[in-house]
Parts: sequence; structure tokens; C-alpha cells
Amino acid sequence: MIGGGQLARMAHQAGVPLGVRFKLLADTPQDSAAQVVADTVLGDYRDMETLRRFAADCDVVTFDHEHVPTEHLRALEADGIAVRPGPDALVNAQDKGVMRAKLDSIGVPCPRHRIVADPADVTAFAAEGSGYPVVLKTVRGGYDGKGVWVVDDEAGAAAPFLAGVPVLAEEKVDFLRELAANVVRSPSGQAVAYPVVESVQENGVCAEVTAPAPGLDPELAAEAQALALRIAGDLGIVGHLAVELFQTRDGRVLVNELAMRPHNSGHWTQDGAVTSQFENHLRAVLDLPLGDPRPRAKWTVMVNVLGGDYPDMYHAFLHCMARDPGLRIHMYGKDVKPGRKVGHVNVFGDDLDDVRERARHAAAYLRGTITE
Amino acid sequence: MIGGGQLARMAHQAGVPLGVRFKLLADTPQDSAAQVVADTVLGDYRDMETLRRFAADCDVVTFDHEHVPTEHLRALEADGIAVRPGPDALVNAQDKGVMRAKLDSIGVPCPRHRIVADPADVTAFAAEGSGYPVVLKTVRGGYDGKGVWVVDDEAGAAAPFLAGVPVLAEEKVDFLRELAANVVRSPSGQAVAYPVVESVQENGVCAEVTAPAPGLDPELAAEAQALALRIAGDLGIVGHLAVELFQTRDGRVLVNELAMRPHNSGHWTQDGAVTSQFENHLRAVLDLPLGDPRPRAKWTVMVNVLGGDYPDMYHAFLHCMARDPGLRIHMYGKDVKPGRKVGHVNVFGDDLDDVRERARHAAAYLRGTITE
Repeated sequence: MIGGGQLARMAHQAGVPLGVRFKLLADTPQDSAAQVVADTVLGDYRDMETLRRFAADCDVVTFDHEHVPTEHLRALEADGIAVRPGPDALVNAQDKGVMRAKLDSIGVPCPRHRIVADPADVTAFAAEGSGYPVVLKTVRGGYDGKGVWVVDDEAGAAAPFLAGVPVLAEEKVDFLRELAANVVRSPSGQAVAYPVVESVQENGVCAEVTAPAPGLDPELAAEAQALALRIAGDLGIVGHLAVELFQTRDGRVLVNELAMRPHNSGHWTQDGAVTSQFENHLRAVLDLPLGDPRPRAKWTVMVNVLGGDYPDMYHAFLHCMARDPGLRIHMYGKDVKPGRKVGHVNVFGDDLDDVRERARHAAAYLRGTITE
Repeated sequence: MIGGGQLARMAHQAGVPLGVRFKLLADTPQDSAAQVVADTVLGDYRDMETLRRFAADCDVVTFDHEHVPTEHLRALEADGIAVRPGPDALVNAQDKGVMRAKLDSIGVPCPRHRIVADPADVTAFAAEGSGYPVVLKTVRGGYDGKGVWVVDDEAGAAAPFLAGVPVLAEEKVDFLRELAANVVRSPSGQAVAYPVVESVQENGVCAEVTAPAPGLDPELAAEAQALALRIAGDLGIVGHLAVELFQTRDGRVLVNELAMRPHNSGHWTQDGAVTSQFENHLRAVLDLPLGDPRPRAKWTVMVNVLGGDYPDMYHAFLHCMARDPGLRIHMYGKDVKPGRKVGHVNVFGDDLDDVRERARHAAAYLRGTITE
């Protein structure tokens, strides 16, 4: 796996019982995954020779993030290395312009969008629809709200163009809520779909996920799952695919973003599903039969733990564990910095209000925003 | 953790979400745990200087096995290292003579027993009860049926004395079945008890565990749990304690063996309990609040995967995963040798017959004793 973040850390954890040899390419020994993976190589994923040496004895190469240059992935494939997901699929998670064009071509419903040339063109795009505000995204390099702007007028539309990267304009969808449809597909085409979840974002960062999405019309849930499975198939994705969706007030779903790796909206599966997204991602890229994606509890809620003002979470950690023995805490081994994702908590049970309150309480206490 | 076997491998896996720094002392890089743990030191656990160097920067030292010499553990403690479980507790898992004397002193019911001097003394011991057969055990060094003999007469009683280790004689209990009571205790005295399980041994090796023990009288189950909690407290155990029990035909429980580390009879907890024995062992030795030990399914069955005649399990692995997506397979990364424990499978669900059949089928198929 290329990339030493928490997704690689948790994939390693999931790989232990599979008996697979898990090899990691990380930036530093302090990386979240490098702290726990026996077979860690340090190096720069942007350097072709580093990638080549790393991949030489791998059966398959997969990713913790989407940042490996597409041309390097093609070169690895030309060397005979199995790259999963492959560059032709992955480019849809790397480049939002490519992704929108591809989804259009296969008839997947998306927010109204087009590539815009300059602020005046943004105003023209706005005028084609219901006007400002408009969402602007650089087509490459964004994550967790970075590279995304919601602009209210032409003056505000200047910033995204400064990076010299093509800019995609999208209508600001007046959504009821955000959903995510997580599916996993293997090279043979076997695929599994997790229950559709509700996802709450704060400042462009995933904050809370409820599985399954409460009150979701079963037909719309099935439609969202079918959409994700179709995208996985049509784009030739191997591994985990997270499809972030807007549920509109008129009962439709529109695709917001794609991620072709384990995803924050699937962390609940570690404690809430028979087979976690991490294990199924590994099974898929290794072409092993996929595991049962069904939920193990009526409700599972995941809340991200963000860093607060106190660098030492140890006493908060003790308090939360003592207060709630059923809490499933997942820490990433990262230094605490304000607003940084340093872990998440999962809680499962029969009573959604109780489950949600427990998960929220723990995350808030760990962050330090509450003290009792 | 000292010892690189599968217990350390699975403890590492359980430690990843806790965010703990897990350091391993293993014999070779091929050891089950050394394959997966980032911070692995190679060395001989019988060598005091190796232990001292290994432990110098550890907050606490714990074990994958009971073989570290007691005097070395005392020396580590004298150096100011936290050793959990401590040598005074651990000696009861290292020396069956010490264990029996200790359990007698605190009034815990055991099979009739005494240290015997020679084969003639074994005959005298037999005559004090209901005669042969008698169970003979070397007081140190045995595991998985090694160091245990069931002898039918004085001539057969010679072998155990050849090792020059004291020999313990025990009545051969005419038991209904074997049970195990697993508990975890922290230094502060907090303790949790897992449901009492039924354990089936084959050739002295744990083969199958059913959680909870089917048809067990709730009063006897509570008595077994209370017994295990009392042993943990009275012996000052920190960490996981497995109490292997005989359920007699007249409705009593007698203590067979003690293990002070995660134990084969607790492997079901990985998929069948809210908090696994591995996580709770780590929480206990680190003096973190313990996690909920309650079961997550009506029934969970664990069957060990033993090596068969075919060194390559890969195709059997594929077949089992494809046949049963709900199967939870745990492989140890070990070379397959006939009869060697190389993994286990857990299956959970509402229907005991179904759950048991699925677990047994997978284990038998992986071993190669069935082909469909």
C-alpha cells in the first residue's frame, strides 16, 4: 500500500487475520501506518524509481490516497505490476473534471457543472442556472474541503484560479442531507454493497456517519447502491469505492465525490459490519472472494475525533473508556493538532438516540470541547 | 510483549486502534507476530541482558507465553520495570505444582492430586482413590498436551520421570465436558468476565470452542465466572486469565489448568464479543479501563485450523471464503505442517447447528480432510 496515513494503518490491521504480507511505502517513520506495519519502506511516492523498487516484489499495489501521479501508475503497469485500482479508474478520483465527464457519459446524475475559464465565466455559469452561490473546485489536489470554494459573486470567484489548475464550477445543491454508498468490487467483477449511510460534514470534513441512513426510503437506498455498483463496474474500479451523494429535497440522489480507497464514511464497518471496508478492500485488490457487508447492529454511529487545544488526550481517553465500556475507539497514533483528525469512535446498538449521544459525547470529550 | 507467536500477532492487531506503541521480542523474523509488528526486536527471552535491553523503554512488559524464567522477571521488576502479570502470579501458570498448592490454599476445587516421587508412588496415589488410570504431568514445560500422560498402570508411569522434573499426579476426572472461564483483571482490581464457553480438546489440543457453553445451568456458569474472578484476585493476576474447567457429571466444576495471557478458548471474542480478549489483555496490563466483554451474537463457534498434508492452503482459503462470506478466518502466517495450529475460524449467528457446521466445514476444508 502506498501512503502511510490512517487508512493504511487500519488496512494493515484488517490484513493481519488474512495472513497477507502487507508492505507499506510511507514518508516518515512517524506516519500513522509506519508506526505499526512491520514491512515499511520510506520514500517519496512521487519518485518513479522509488515506486519501482517498492513494487518490484509486490503481488499487487494499492493506495491510501489518490496522489500518485497517473503516469507513474501507467509505468508500473507497463512493468507488469498489478495496480488496483488501475490508473484508468483512479484518474476519476484524481481529477474532478475527468470524473464529471465520465459520469455524464454513463448517465449518472450529478449536480449541474462545467469547467470554467475565469471569474466572468463563473458568472456566465451561474446565469445559466439559478445564479450565485456557485461551488468552485480545482480539478486536482483537493481533499477534506481543501480546493473547494463556495462563492457568492464574481469578485469572490478569483481565488480558485490562482493555482493555475483547471477549475470546475458546480451548482450549489440545496440538499436535504448527504449520503454515502460504499461498495467493493474485485477484478473478477464480484461486488458487495454496504448499507447506504448518512454523513454529516463540518467545514468540508466528514464529522459523523450513521449506518444505515435513518428514514431513508428503501427504494432510494437501493437506487443509490445500484448507482455505486454501476459506477464501480463502468469505471473498472477494483477495491473500495465510496460514492458521496446529495439527497435532494425532491427525492433524488446526485453524485458529489468519488473515493477509490477505504473512506471515512465506511469506518463504521470496523465494528458495525460483518466484514470491514478495510478487509474487503484488501480482499478485492488481492482477488480474494469478498466478505459479507451486512450490518451487525441495528444502528452504528461513527464520529471523528478531532484534535483540540490539549496535545495530551491520555486522561480524556481514560475517562471515555471508563464511562462507556462499549465504546470502540480507533486512534491513529498522530500528534494532536487543533482540528486534525486523530481518530474516530464507533458505537453500535438498538437505540439510535443513545448510540449517537454516546459517540458524540466521546468525540467531544476527547477533543476537549466538553469536560463532563 | 515477549514472544512472537500468534497470540502476540493478534494482540498487536488489537492494539492498533488503542494507539499504543507495541514492541515485540521475537526469536526470528519469521515468527507469526514478527511478520506484522513494526517495532520488533530479535533475541532470546531466556537471556537476562536481552530482556533488560528490550524492556528498558517499555511502560509495561507482558507475554505471549509463560516460558520466561521467573528469576528474570523478578530481576526486571527489581530494575523498576512493570511486569504484568507479575512473577508471583505467573509462577502459577509456569509450575503446576505451585498452582495446585495455591488453589488448594484458597479453597478452589481441583481434581485430587499430589506430587509423586516415582512409579510406585503413582500406584500408591491411584490406590488412595479409585485406582488407575492416573494423569501425570511434569510441573513445568508442558503445553498443548505435551508434558501430560494418561497412564493405565505402574509400568506406563515411568516416562514422565525421565525428564528429571517434579511430577504431579491427578485423578482422571470422568467429566461431562470441558469449560473455560475467561476473565481479565487490571492492576486497580477492575475485572470483567466473558461468558463461560464449552471447549472440545482433541489429542490434548483445543479444537473447538462454543460461546456460550450450550445448555449450561446459569447458576453453574455464574459459579465458574466467580471462581475465575476469585482466582484472578487472590493470585494477583493482571491481564487475561483463562481457567480451564472440567464439568463433572454430578454438576460441579473443577479447575484443570490456568493460562495468564490471551488463550485459545477466548479466540471467539475477536468476532463474538464487544471487546476481544486481546484488547482487554492490553487494556489491563496498561491499566486502561476494561472494555465490555458481552457477546455480540447468540452463538459464536471457534474451530482451530490445523495443518494437513498440503503445504499450500491458498486454494482452500479461496474456496472457503467464496462458499461462506460470513466466515471470519484468522491466519497466523505460519508454514503449514501436519497437526500444527496455523489459524482459526470464527462463525457467529442465531442457529447453533448452522454456526457449528459452517465453522467445522471451513476448518476441515482448510486442513484438507474434506474436499467439498
